[in-house]
Amino acid sequence: MARSKTSTASSAAQARPSKTTGRSKKKTPSKKPAASKSKRAASASPVSMTEPSRGSRRYLFNFGADGADGDREMKNLLGGKGANLAEMCNLGLPVPPGFTLSTEVCRYYYDHGLSYPRGLGKDVLAAMKRLETAMQKKFGDPDNPLLVSVRSGARVSMPGMMDTVLNLGLNDETVEGLARSAGNERFAWDAYRRFVQMYSEVVMGVGAEDEHGQSPFSLALEELKEKRAVSLDIDLDADDLKGLVQTFKAIALRVALRSFPEDPMEQLRGAISAVFGSWNNERAILYRSMNDIPSDWGTAVSVVAMVFGNLGTTSGTGVAFTRDPASGEKRFYGEYLMNAQGEDVVAGLRTPEPIERLKETSPKLWRELQRIQKLLENHYRDMQDLEFTIENGKLYMLQCRTGKRTGFAAVRIACDLVRERKISRDEALMRIDPEALNQLLQPVFDPAELERAKAAGRLLTSGLNAGPGAASGHVTFNAAEAVRRAGEGQKVLLVRIETSPEDIEGMQAAEGILTARGGMTSHAALVARQMGKVCVAGVADLEINYKASSLQVHGRRFGEGEFLSLDGTTGEVFEGQISTAPSEVMQAMFHEGKGARGGGQIYASFKRLMGWADEVRQLRVRTNADQPDQCELAVAFGAEGIGLCRTEHMFFGENKIEAVREMILAESSEARELALAKLLPLQRADFEGIFRAMGERPVTIRTLDPPLHEFLPHSPAAIRALAKDLGLPAKRIAQKVEQLTELNPMLGHRGCRLGITYPEITRMQVRAIFQAACRVARTSKKMPRPEIMIPLIATREELQLQVRIVREVAEEVFEEEGRRIKYLVGTMIELPRAALTAGEIAKEAEFFSFGTNDLTQTTFGISRDDAGKFIPAYRKLDILPDDPFSSIDLPGVGKLMQIASMDGKAARPDLKLGICGEHGGEPKSIRFCHELGLAYVSCSPYRIPIARLAAAQAAIRARL
Amino acid sequence: MARSKTSTASSAAQARPSKTTGRSKKKTPSKKPAASKSKRAASASPVSMTEPSRGSRRYLFNFGADGADGDREMKNLLGGKGANLAEMCNLGLPVPPGFTLSTEVCRYYYDHGLSYPRGLGKDVLAAMKRLETAMQKKFGDPDNPLLVSVRSGARVSMPGMMDTVLNLGLNDETVEGLARSAGNERFAWDAYRRFVQMYSEVVMGVGAEDEHGQSPFSLALEELKEKRAVSLDIDLDADDLKGLVQTFKAIALRVALRSFPEDPMEQLRGAISAVFGSWNNERAILYRSMNDIPSDWGTAVSVVAMVFGNLGTTSGTGVAFTRDPASGEKRFYGEYLMNAQGEDVVAGLRTPEPIERLKETSPKLWRELQRIQKLLENHYRDMQDLEFTIENGKLYMLQCRTGKRTGFAAVRIACDLVRERKISRDEALMRIDPEALNQLLQPVFDPAELERAKAAGRLLTSGLNAGPGAASGHVTFNAAEAVRRAGEGQKVLLVRIETSPEDIEGMQAAEGILTARGGMTSHAALVARQMGKVCVAGVADLEINYKASSLQVHGRRFGEGEFLSLDGTTGEVFEGQISTAPSEVMQAMFHEGKGARGGGQIYASFKRLMGWADEVRQLRVRTNADQPDQCELAVAFGAEGIGLCRTEHMFFGENKIEAVREMILAESSEARELALAKLLPLQRADFEGIFRAMGERPVTIRTLDPPLHEFLPHSPAAIRALAKDLGLPAKRIAQKVEQLTELNPMLGHRGCRLGITYPEITRMQVRAIFQAACRVARTSKKMPRPEIMIPLIATREELQLQVRIVREVAEEVFEEEGRRIKYLVGTMIELPRAALTAGEIAKEAEFFSFGTNDLTQTTFGISRDDAGKFIPAYRKLDILPDDPFSSIDLPGVGKLMQIASMDGKAARPDLKLGICGEHGGEPKSIRFCHELGLAYVSCSPYRIPIARLAAAQAAIRARL
Repeated sequence: MARSKTSTASSAAQARPSKTTGRSKKKTPSKKPAASKSKRAASASPVSMTEPSRGSRRYLFNFGADGADGDREMKNLLGGKGANLAEMCNLGLPVPPGFTLSTEVCRYYYDHGLSYPRGLGKDVLAAMKRLETAMQKKFGDPDNPLLVSVRSGARVSMPGMMDTVLNLGLNDETVEGLARSAGNERFAWDAYRRFVQMYSEVVMGVGAEDEHGQSPFSLALEELKEKRAVSLDIDLDADDLKGLVQTFKAIALRVALRSFPEDPMEQLRGAISAVFGSWNNERAILYRSMNDIPSDWGTAVSVVAMVFGNLGTTSGTGVAFTRDPASGEKRFYGEYLMNAQGEDVVAGLRTPEPIERLKETSPKLWRELQRIQKLLENHYRDMQDLEFTIENGKLYMLQCRTGKRTGFAAVRIACDLVRERKISRDEALMRIDPEALNQLLQPVFDPAELERAKAAGRLLTSGLNAGPGAASGHVTFNAAEAVRRAGEGQKVLLVRIETSPEDIEGMQAAEGILTARGGMTSHAALVARQMGKVCVAGVADLEINYKASSLQVHGRRFGEGEFLSLDGTTGEVFEGQISTAPSEVMQAMFHEGKGARGGGQIYASFKRLMGWADEVRQLRVRTNADQPDQCELAVAFGAEGIGLCRTEHMFFGENKIEAVREMILAESSEARELALAKLLPLQRADFEGIFRAMGERPVTIRTLDPPLHEFLPHSPAAIRALAKDLGLPAKRIAQKVEQLTELNPMLGHRGCRLGITYPEITRMQVRAIFQAACRVARTSKKMPRPEIMIPLIATREELQLQVRIVREVAEEVFEEEGRRIKYLVGTMIELPRAALTAGEIAKEAEFFSFGTNDLTQTTFGISRDDAGKFIPAYRKLDILPDDPFSSIDLPGVGKLMQIASMDGKAARPDLKLGICGEHGGEPKSIRFCHELGLAYVSCSPYRIPIARLAAAQAAIRARL
Repeated sequence: MARSKTSTASSAAQARPSKTTGRSKKKTPSKKPAASKSKRAASASPVSMTEPSRGSRRYLFNFGADGADGDREMKNLLGGKGANLAEMCNLGLPVPPGFTLSTEVCRYYYDHGLSYPRGLGKDVLAAMKRLETAMQKKFGDPDNPLLVSVRSGARVSMPGMMDTVLNLGLNDETVEGLARSAGNERFAWDAYRRFVQMYSEVVMGVGAEDEHGQSPFSLALEELKEKRAVSLDIDLDADDLKGLVQTFKAIALRVALRSFPEDPMEQLRGAISAVFGSWNNERAILYRSMNDIPSDWGTAVSVVAMVFGNLGTTSGTGVAFTRDPASGEKRFYGEYLMNAQGEDVVAGLRTPEPIERLKETSPKLWRELQRIQKLLENHYRDMQDLEFTIENGKLYMLQCRTGKRTGFAAVRIACDLVRERKISRDEALMRIDPEALNQLLQPVFDPAELERAKAAGRLLTSGLNAGPGAASGHVTFNAAEAVRRAGEGQKVLLVRIETSPEDIEGMQAAEGILTARGGMTSHAALVARQMGKVCVAGVADLEINYKASSLQVHGRRFGEGEFLSLDGTTGEVFEGQISTAPSEVMQAMFHEGKGARGGGQIYASFKRLMGWADEVRQLRVRTNADQPDQCELAVAFGAEGIGLCRTEHMFFGENKIEAVREMILAESSEARELALAKLLPLQRADFEGIFRAMGERPVTIRTLDPPLHEFLPHSPAAIRALAKDLGLPAKRIAQKVEQLTELNPMLGHRGCRLGITYPEITRMQVRAIFQAACRVARTSKKMPRPEIMIPLIATREELQLQVRIVREVAEEVFEEEGRRIKYLVGTMIELPRAALTAGEIAKEAEFFSFGTNDLTQTTFGISRDDAGKFIPAYRKLDILPDDPFSSIDLPGVGKLMQIASMDGKAARPDLKLGICGEHGGEPKSIRFCHELGLAYVSCSPYRIPIARLAAAQAAIRARL
């Protein structure tokens, strides 16, 4: 039964448009960067604070010692920071008071020409009064001034992407009051000069850098230090800083052409608009596009009373995690610095102390922090990231949020929390980003060595992180050389402009693959991920010269045999060697698959988690594999069958390619059958290996798919060599290559079109499959379960013709072998027409497997090999929210899948549905597959754990 | 309002599958040709004549002097021949009695392993008894034998495609009886030897030809004539013929390994099965596939009592038409031959007499024939094709069917019948196959000269009849040479392996285009039809050598400047020159468009018919054109606007291509704008010309579509030449060409993707359009109506970005020019994703134009440029009932169009819908467009009259 097919799928499909509508209102594709534009506009239209609030909607939420208007459930409205500050107040924790302007204000601001809801100004005035009362200070009071910070805070954390203004409320008068009330003149003027700089940069648009890449403020500071002959900021005294404030104000006037505002209320209005404006600065936009955060979520703005960690030795500031964010170990972890503000910790001029030191130096504070961190973790039931400040011995919590963690920590923490009975298994499963599991599976560079390499300037360039992991090796420029060197025991990298099926053996032999062209689903990327190879693809500034067997990058030249190192997780390319090691989890999983025991803490957690996932999920997880060793690996990783075995990959094996070429060059059906007869035993042996590895798990085998020219050599030299081998005139081979050349091979003579024009090829392949299955059944006592899949079907008639061949040959073989094998015949749904006529096609097919790679190419009319020229521009312009070759495009491709699923099941209720495109290993796509009621997803071996987890999450989500 | 959208479109979509289901049951893709297989099977399982009829269904229908069981409405059941024989009986006309086995018997026969419905045998026996009574003869009676013919007859006429057996019932005994009753021994034995040969060939499978290409029967006849030293069959006497019968029977025994059946009943059973079997002989299958006749219609079999035209001088046979089938003139037209059987007329050994001769020789017969032909034409209300036999002075009607006619005759007869008040205007419009109008529009070879050329063996080869008409000219192998020679006043043909946009000027200069590669919608075919050029495409056995400037075909070589002649209506290629002339209608239409009067009888009829069509149709008809002269022609042919103006065609004009190349080679946005500034006035002048030609008719202009590499030279020499022109290093141009090269250009960086990555191109084009429109408005007092169309949209966001540019530039130009132009902005729907998300896209688009060429390519995943390698096999295997590039594929592409129309209209009720793919000129597709509720179709100028008629037919059909 399909699980809530229609409703979920259609709601998913509908969700997108409204999202993009929202976005489209906000984005102006203009040659000016959005940041500068909105910043200018923001300062032009600050919050009006005079009009009364009339709307029924609440835009402002207070928080403080007496509790809060909001709570942690209101992240969408208050942003993460605002919601958690409110929540901590509700828990009675010491939080400086403040108020939050909601994300709806942000949306209103952009939807109404950068203006604010009526009455908001009055609400802000009232909230500031509340702050004054709570802090017993007055905003702008020359004697005892209240200072505030103005901070951004989106629904999800976007660290460092948006702007913040600290120490707001200082002017030439209040600075004196602050000095008096703090009893520290230097502190007050230091706060003031920092505020003038920050405000000038964030609100007044004074560029942080001039044409020489230096901030005019830093320049002035440096000049002053030189004049005073001191090296550190702290060596400047109060008078120095007083002078600096005047210098900074002069800079602001010169650059922004208006004077620095002395009125604290004007400061506040300007800062709020600037922080809302920073939602659309360039780096925030980029970060959102990289992290799939919709543009219309908006940010909230929190205005918080300032507390100071730099008032003296009884003040300080720190950050901490309730568990180790790297390993996941259960220990309070963090660091602090006395007599410092937050930015000092970051600046790294002084070395912070580990948090445990507090136990000795301030046992009371330590106990309070311990109480708070436990309370917060128990309250949030997850590892928390805390920021605190100590002002004259009093602790203030400034922030609390769910802590970022490594994949290792994510797995361990989730398992530990279940054991501690803090969360359920389902919750544990939902806590982990499936992609984070990649970290547990890929080999890594030795971290220290990596640091050293970077410091030594060995980072050459970077490209697409197409195959995660780390690899070092000798550079080779063709498959033969890679195979040769690997045969000698060398570790090699295969460097190609782009790869083709001819390179398969070379890719297999290499540790990693580096290409100058192609995207995340280029041939190189696809095969690399399936093989579990490291791959950095599409490195545009790589100039490869095959003739000279060399590459150049930014003027540096590397010849054959020289060393490069590839970090497929980051896409970085390094000069020379860096040591790597396979991940612990991978080794343990593989050894356990082989019957051995092993693995440490992380593997134990990982295994427990996978077990829970397997209990929950309804989708089966298969693998795309076509070699027995790949199959074994996949089974160790949890594969429940093969969803796609590409028979053509086998064609490139030793002894095979010659027969394949003979077949292609055959001039008659008879000659072709002769060549095919040579291929038969070779293919049969391939299939025997696969059936043995897979036992009684289903094995979906696709008949020949790629255009035949891929199997022929293309360079004149290679053609001459082949001619010599086959005893044919080179001209004839060249003619055949020319004849097979197509303008658009993707839309050409391939897939079932080969099997229809050369039925003898299908016949040979099917014969090899059934002979292998019968032999394995006889010798292993296990019954192989072949599922034969016909590619690139557009019409029912095509499938009918191929199915007839399969059934005829099956009967012949069963008769010859004296035994029967249960099998299925089905088709890939990889052309729009197949999806649109699925009701007809299902009459011939026992299963459908969605080939979403090709389906995406034809639905969009985009060749993934050629998309590199415009996709970057598309991503930048936000035309494609996700790469449709990574995550299924729901409104287009998803709609076709929905049509095909419904019409197919209507025509044949027991139709088995699966997916074998690259999307089968991508969590969002897996969720959609679950909602569509598919029976299985299929992905490359290394993505199986990810798919198992994602399938479990989809099942849990559907229950919610 | 859409016209009965859902119901009709979906019923159309459903019609196909059931049809193919029927067909699929009948076809076995086997290496043996279907014909021989079914023939063997047929003789293995003749009609069983013993079982009684039990089914409630009626399979056998009698006809004779006392009326008939059927009538003319029952063509689907009785076949055309059977239905019309029954109808003539009902009209009381003299028809030999007989009976018809329905097409349902044929379907049953194929659906049940070549066996017959229970009881049919008994029905046949009863019907034979009826015949005996009517004819007062007995089947198999040695004294007064009844003879019958066994004839095929499908729902539509398939002349000569299926088998017939005459004189059935003769054996060694009955031949004597026939001799006696006819009083003519030679006649009887002549009938017998013909019967033995025909039966042996048709039923017993004795090959009509041996390995030397000669029939063993003809061989024996020739030997006998040699022995007797006579030259004509009629010089052989009765004894000669007696001997020949024995020889023939011996041949049958030797080849078929069984003796010739003497039992008349066995003969009858065998003949019926053989005729049903002939439905699936190779030539019938080919004919059906060429004429879009479904395989599951089946044939009926009529068994008719023999009457003889060769009993002596008072006997005879003839064929006649109620009007002239060539010219359509209203005159009784035909020929006859006394003392002859039908095949003698065909054999051409004796010259038949014109039918008017009967008036003198047999005035009574003439009067009767006159009465019958008038009666039949009035009865059928259409021109009839009659066959008759005179047996001893008595007239028998053997066949009556609607007569085939030329396009000229079709138009004239339809108009005349309206004037004679025999049919309504709607009926007249429905009578004419829109494609037949092609004949009226295309230049033709002088018929006599053509005959002579064929007789002289000047027919070299043939290919696809891609652009109708006739052309002779000097062969040229590149555009430059074609232009050069044409400039000198020579008539030239452009011969290319395939054409590309670079060849446009050469194609324009040539009389005709000949290509070795490409299908009916290849670039050559497409552009040729739009230009109205003769085109023969995809001539596989043409070997073109550009280097040597020569072509070879079947060993004959032609160099540059030699003469060839192309018949684009038949696809034939001739050596040397053959004179041509433009069609009368075309000349008249064009001159009248220019204000002159003219045109003869045919043109008058054509014009009247077009007027009726225009009154009836609801679809507007636009044209695909991009030159002012094409526009003028199209308007003369009745274009109501431009549906597709391809701006890139203009890019190849003189002076323009240089600027285009400069733009492509520009390294910065600034350099590109500089080059575009040069192009702007050139494009503006192009658009001015078009707006002037089109007046206030809407003009849909598509922004730049093809990949940029199409505008660059590719050969090293051309690259060097360009480098010299531009003062750039050749290497840089070569690099750019390399960089722009794509694996699948069809799915690459083209369409709106160009306008998005280079918005300055869109901006320049839109500026040129609006400047041109403003200038034409100022000087001509007519308001141009530009409709700007963005190609290859896949997502709403793409369109939004391009629409914003169009509107911005429009406002700029309107301000500069001080006047406003009304315009629309819309998009092509040519990718599946655009159709699937049409509801979203419609929010940005004021119109949709279905680009069914690309939509078909992506929906099927078939590149029309590369399809040549498998489409022939597909047509042969009946996988594609129609070429989807010629006629819209309803279940796939049609379904997408339906989704897009419905979702688009739902989102924007005033959305204007049209089509500009090649399908816009194809009648079946036009019908679908009407049903879908489109506002217009757009096609090449020469297809406009066809589209006008097809649109009228669609409107009439929807009313029925």
